[in-house]
Amino acid sequence: MRPVEPQEPTLESLRQRLTEFAAARGWEPFHTPKNLAAALSVEAGELLEIFQWLTPEQAGRVMDDPGGAHRVRDEVADVLAYLLQFCTAAGVDPLAALAAKIERNEVRFPVPKPPTEGR
Amino acid sequence: MRPVEPQEPTLESLRQRLTEFAAARGWEPFHTPKNLAAALSVEAGELLEIFQWLTPEQAGRVMDDPGGAHRVRDEVADVLAYLLQFCTAAGVDPLAALAAKIERNEVRFPVPKPPTEGR
Amino acid sequence: MRPVEPQEPTLESLRQRLTEFAAARGWEPFHTPKNLAAALSVEAGELLEIFQWLTPEQAGRVMDDPGGAHRVRDEVADVLAYLLQFCTAAGVDPLAALAAKIERNEVRFPVPKPPTEGR
Amino acid sequence: MRPVEPQEPTLESLRQRLTEFAAARGWEPFHTPKNLAAALSVEAGELLEIFQWLTPEQAGRVMDDPGGAHRVRDEVADVLAYLLQFCTAAGVDPLAALAAKIERNEVRFPVPKPPTEGR
Repeated sequence: MRPVEPQEPTLESLRQRLTEFAAARGWEPFHTPKNLAAALSVEAGELLEIFQWLTPEQAGRVMDDPGGAHRVRDEVADVLAYLLQFCTAAGVDPLAALAAKIERNEVRFPVPKPPTEGR
Repeated sequence: MRPVEPQEPTLESLRQRLTEFAAARGWEPFHTPKNLAAALSVEAGELLEIFQWLTPEQAGRVMDDPGGAHRVRDEVADVLAYLLQFCTAAGVDPLAALAAKIERNEVRFPVPKPPTEGR
Repeated sequence: MRPVEPQEPTLESLRQRLTEFAAARGWEPFHTPKNLAAALSVEAGELLEIFQWLTPEQAGRVMDDPGGAHRVRDEVADVLAYLLQFCTAAGVDPLAALAAKIERNEVRFPVPKPPTEGR
Repeated sequence: MRPVEPQEPTLESLRQRLTEFAAARGWEPFHTPKNLAAALSVEAGELLEIFQWLTPEQAGRVMDDPGGAHRVRDEVADVLAYLLQFCTAAGVDPLAALAAKIERNEVRFPVPKPPTEGR
């Protein structure tokens, strides 16, 4: 039996749960890095689809509608699920990858300095 | 000054760091849900681009090459960054969304039962 | 009344027909270059979705199944429709753009010369 | 030798030219339906990337800038090239597919009737 899920899931606990989920259903042969990168791209498209005809104002109010909010959360979950499954298949640590990227971007895009007093 | 990053970043600590990063550079007006959903989709395409001409076998060996591995981690980071920024803009908790989706999928795709002894 | 469609539609006749189709339904305000580029990307994802879990061999046989063939033709039509509508909105001639690109690629990727007799 | 290109290329003449282009470079083994659907999706993302941070107003002026216009035409060409190569690999007639889809959509989305005189 699956142990009781802790109240606050972590990215790592969900990643492991997705791995077990796929293994229990025999889906591993399909979960190659190439297939999962394709699936991730498809799901990102489904999230974008929700917004494609909306003005920026309408897009900002999507979460006010319960149906829209459910659809958005559902697509966010799908994108995150395939991203985590890709990371499992490719052997990538997603949090370490993002932390390293933020470090690089802090160098690449320095914070603009405010005008100094003397100016 | 930025406090010392804890040794193990969490999804939430990185999400907050991305929010501060964008705020410090005045990028918030661009970070609408619609724009971020588009950027997420674009980055998912860049991850897929790495694999598009590879056979399943070649795709499985991408991480053996240091250049390929760096590129994959870089694109994973970009996808995760825009997903988290989208969640900030739309007010979505990504871990709760994924946990709820896994619950639904466990009902939707029951584990096939193994053949019983008597068969 | 719509005139009888010529037996062999051209890209240009279909592009015009799509413009009339959108105008008759009052859809023009939605058909901005940005929205249409998003819709094109979403539809390209739907075409890819058909193939995402298939082996290269299975993917090569998708058109043998009438349901699969219909779905593929339907998604090809959607991609082409949004591409043409994007071209209308942005003022791009798609055939001239592609002809120019092929010219550039013929310079960029020269045909490998066969080994000469003397070798 | 390649015959002189007619002044007005057609979709079919460009499709054939792309087929010859790939054959001359030995690229056919890579041009499977699955790989080409992935490449099409990637290129659609690159077109969208041009617009991702723009307001609807800025997006409408992209073609006013020569650099922006070149980039847009270049990405339109890439999307159309992979769409045509996909059609070659899968055996789809893109113009027939689109004409059939427009017919179906004319039934699916009837033109709203204007208010009649008596009202």
